[in-house]
Amino acid sequence: MENKNTLPKWKNRLHEIIFEADTSAGKIFDVVLIVSILISVIIVMLDSVKSVSNEYTDLIFYSEWFFTILFSIEYFLRILIVDRPVKYIFSFYGIVDFISVVPTYLSLFFPGGQYFIVIRILRVLRIFRILKFAKYIKEASHLRVALIASRRKIVVFLFVVLSVVLIVGSSMYLIEGEENGFTSIPRSIYWAIVTLTTVGYGDISPQTGLGQAIASMIMILGYGIIAVPTGIVTAEISRTNISSVSTQVCKACSKEGHDADAVYCKYCGAKL
Amino acid sequence: MENKNTLPKWKNRLHEIIFEADTSAGKIFDVVLIVSILISVIIVMLDSVKSVSNEYTDLIFYSEWFFTILFSIEYFLRILIVDRPVKYIFSFYGIVDFISVVPTYLSLFFPGGQYFIVIRILRVLRIFRILKFAKYIKEASHLRVALIASRRKIVVFLFVVLSVVLIVGSSMYLIEGEENGFTSIPRSIYWAIVTLTTVGYGDISPQTGLGQAIASMIMILGYGIIAVPTGIVTAEISRTNISSVSTQVCKACSKEGHDADAVYCKYCGAKL
Amino acid sequence: MENKNTLPKWKNRLHEIIFEADTSAGKIFDVVLIVSILISVIIVMLDSVKSVSNEYTDLIFYSEWFFTILFSIEYFLRILIVDRPVKYIFSFYGIVDFISVVPTYLSLFFPGGQYFIVIRILRVLRIFRILKFAKYIKEASHLRVALIASRRKIVVFLFVVLSVVLIVGSSMYLIEGEENGFTSIPRSIYWAIVTLTTVGYGDISPQTGLGQAIASMIMILGYGIIAVPTGIVTAEISRTNISSVSTQVCKACSKEGHDADAVYCKYCGAKL
Amino acid sequence: MENKNTLPKWKNRLHEIIFEADTSAGKIFDVVLIVSILISVIIVMLDSVKSVSNEYTDLIFYSEWFFTILFSIEYFLRILIVDRPVKYIFSFYGIVDFISVVPTYLSLFFPGGQYFIVIRILRVLRIFRILKFAKYIKEASHLRVALIASRRKIVVFLFVVLSVVLIVGSSMYLIEGEENGFTSIPRSIYWAIVTLTTVGYGDISPQTGLGQAIASMIMILGYGIIAVPTGIVTAEISRTNISSVSTQVCKACSKEGHDADAVYCKYCGAKL
Repeated sequence: MENKNTLPKWKNRLHEIIFEADTSAGKIFDVVLIVSILISVIIVMLDSVKSVSNEYTDLIFYSEWFFTILFSIEYFLRILIVDRPVKYIFSFYGIVDFISVVPTYLSLFFPGGQYFIVIRILRVLRIFRILKFAKYIKEASHLRVALIASRRKIVVFLFVVLSVVLIVGSSMYLIEGEENGFTSIPRSIYWAIVTLTTVGYGDISPQTGLGQAIASMIMILGYGIIAVPTGIVTAEISRTNISSVSTQVCKACSKEGHDADAVYCKYCGAKL
Repeated sequence: MENKNTLPKWKNRLHEIIFEADTSAGKIFDVVLIVSILISVIIVMLDSVKSVSNEYTDLIFYSEWFFTILFSIEYFLRILIVDRPVKYIFSFYGIVDFISVVPTYLSLFFPGGQYFIVIRILRVLRIFRILKFAKYIKEASHLRVALIASRRKIVVFLFVVLSVVLIVGSSMYLIEGEENGFTSIPRSIYWAIVTLTTVGYGDISPQTGLGQAIASMIMILGYGIIAVPTGIVTAEISRTNISSVSTQVCKACSKEGHDADAVYCKYCGAKL
Repeated sequence: MENKNTLPKWKNRLHEIIFEADTSAGKIFDVVLIVSILISVIIVMLDSVKSVSNEYTDLIFYSEWFFTILFSIEYFLRILIVDRPVKYIFSFYGIVDFISVVPTYLSLFFPGGQYFIVIRILRVLRIFRILKFAKYIKEASHLRVALIASRRKIVVFLFVVLSVVLIVGSSMYLIEGEENGFTSIPRSIYWAIVTLTTVGYGDISPQTGLGQAIASMIMILGYGIIAVPTGIVTAEISRTNISSVSTQVCKACSKEGHDADAVYCKYCGAKL
Repeated sequence: MENKNTLPKWKNRLHEIIFEADTSAGKIFDVVLIVSILISVIIVMLDSVKSVSNEYTDLIFYSEWFFTILFSIEYFLRILIVDRPVKYIFSFYGIVDFISVVPTYLSLFFPGGQYFIVIRILRVLRIFRILKFAKYIKEASHLRVALIASRRKIVVFLFVVLSVVLIVGSSMYLIEGEENGFTSIPRSIYWAIVTLTTVGYGDISPQTGLGQAIASMIMILGYGIIAVPTGIVTAEISRTNISSVSTQVCKACSKEGHDADAVYCKYCGAKL
């Protein structure tokens, strides 16, 4: 706090506008930023549609550069203003800000046709900027806590799903064979995932009786085991709703996991 | 109340029949109304089936006008009877009542072929009338409360889903390319939504190995993250269910866990 | 009880074997019955497979008659033995027992080709017999209670789903038109159901940009609102797990809904 | 314990390394084992891809034998070291260890082309080895408990699903008939499972109006009843979560809601 007050006044003011959303100027800045990001993303999307890009080549080209330069200025302002520039640059948002600006510049130095297309995938990453939006919605952290708390159960679940998919995929490769579209084990595993997750494209589908029987079993399994991740996450969200566990640490015994309403440490009896 | 009694008696009576469902006359009116709406909707549907509309052109035409006039009379009666007509007209049901009547009249003034088809889509909106039915089922509000309480979490969830779909869709456009059906980023995003939601039409499906690997990941992701909205809504419905247990303690026996509507202690019989 | 003891001894014994599963003879009878039903169902299924039915025409024919006569004898024994035959005949299981026997006899009197196929659908109803099996699994009633308790919420949910499907289906008929497979409103509604429920056959799929945009919205909606029935049923099962509400009625005030551990009526304070 | 100490020292040491993961040597052994299993599984998968197996025939052949011999040595070491070899051999992991080694040897004695393919399916079972990994993740047992507790409800649910699929499948065989792809009852049942589980390949899809109406109903049913297994598992997981809150009451301040692992009252600091 003390440190901040020694900054020049304009820096302080800019910091408020760019990094915070408490003042009305700060709020307007954030809204303009988000709208700009959305427009630039839509332009990238339209650029890929043949009929649109042929007609508005110039408009798309210039607006793309307009937003890239705008975001570049914003990026350098952030580095200039923030207290610890290095920390910002290597933070999640710092990296995202950088990646969302770079692709357009890269397309200058590598003007070759096929390369240009590869660069475009990086340009799409500008979408990540928008993820900042999430920080304004506090509920996101609630969900994150529930997901983190149930991460180990989810890993076990994913492991079981992958094992099932591996075994069923391999079996189907042998049962159905190449003449029915199951041309290799990886492709059969792809089919098994398409089936277990109930996506069911139908680009590959079992033709033999035995294959259809096994497919039926994996479908019912997939239909049933979706209950497991749902159960895990639901139970976790319910728990966080009911008792909000605080992040307090006992000064006497350093143990965590105290309830929000706890006054004394439940492990050693010391006052929290 | 006072105000209502100053109305002419027939107006009061009609108000009871049309707007309320407490008297038997009011109940009969509502049932007849709902049945009429259902029949008129079925007629609109059958009108679109070539073989049916060719054979029963006249029957469909006259019954359509019969119901339109019936609902028009009902609409004007409602305006005439209600205490504050302007408030009714601009209320949700007032607007729905109006929209459900207009299309057939519009088809008179715009008799051109292609326009007629465009008008038909408005005619379908008559279906909205039926939504009134929902108000008779009190449970709907219970669900609405749970959904409203979890709206912020759902927005965060939808935002994450849209980000994933945008990034994956763009990547697939570059990986699979136009020769495999991913002709533009919007179309690739459409494919990503079809896949993530486990719909899986199969009209567009990845052909390259890398594309199938990414598709597999988004399928498992989509299969897993359905747990999140389910968890949110379930936790909310559970909470509304549980909150009906009061935190009252019996003064006589100090026992807890009484229902919110309890008047006497269920353990010792003392008044709460 | 008194009544039963006046029955002849053999009747009492047979009643035990056929209707109850407490004695070992009764248990063996039930197991044999279920296995017979399963075999007869498998025979009906195999009968429909061309290659199998051509080779084993006689075997299938005789075994079909064998099981039909077996089940007929069982049906008449049940009527003979039970205390109130009329009540049994018109009970759920009585009707199922009758329907599962009739089709084979009907195929005698109506030997015409096309009729025979129509009769076969009735023959399939023998499968209903197997539903008896459920009564041996007590947990079924637990699920039934949870489903009945949430039936009103489920009706509201189904109503919303049907409204959405009706409106979206009609809109898509106008947007996509007959050239893209949306040949009538009922067929478009069929497509909307296929999409909303995330089945996604792909036999009909939107081709226009606007159609794909609307399809995307209905997919995300369908993907999200599955949370609602899941939430309803989960909350209900959780509640039944936690507090088993007894079916006691207060003798003083005739009110219901007392908890299983209640000693006094929570409404009037009278002893239960 | 006493018994173990009488073993030769090297046996004791090897037992620690191979069977336990407490020492750093034991941990390294487990990681190396898991990585080896993963590599050998990937080799089996790549072997099935024509383009890869043609180019690297020798590399795949030798590495397959390398891993088989490695796992064989490990298998015999386990039998040698373990206290009760017979118990290990017939335990789950013992059988999995054996099955994961056998297929490559079998391919020696049965060199015929078509047999070789059949043997390959057994070779794939080596994947089962990896299931050991699960024992390192304690959460798996939490999930297993929840699933075992709800197994009876799940059986009832599966029974209802199979009955629905049987009846609908048979009906569709009669309604749609062979000209629309419903060539036999088993195939129609396969279609019903594909539809009810919302997989929806689209390889078979109803063409008649009545067929599409029934398909719509089974889709909505399938979309809705997924709530049931989800509800069952969620309620069970929630219960196991909640049960970790003890019913202890503090003797000093009479407050409840202490966690199962609490030693001191979190409200007043008194010893529980």
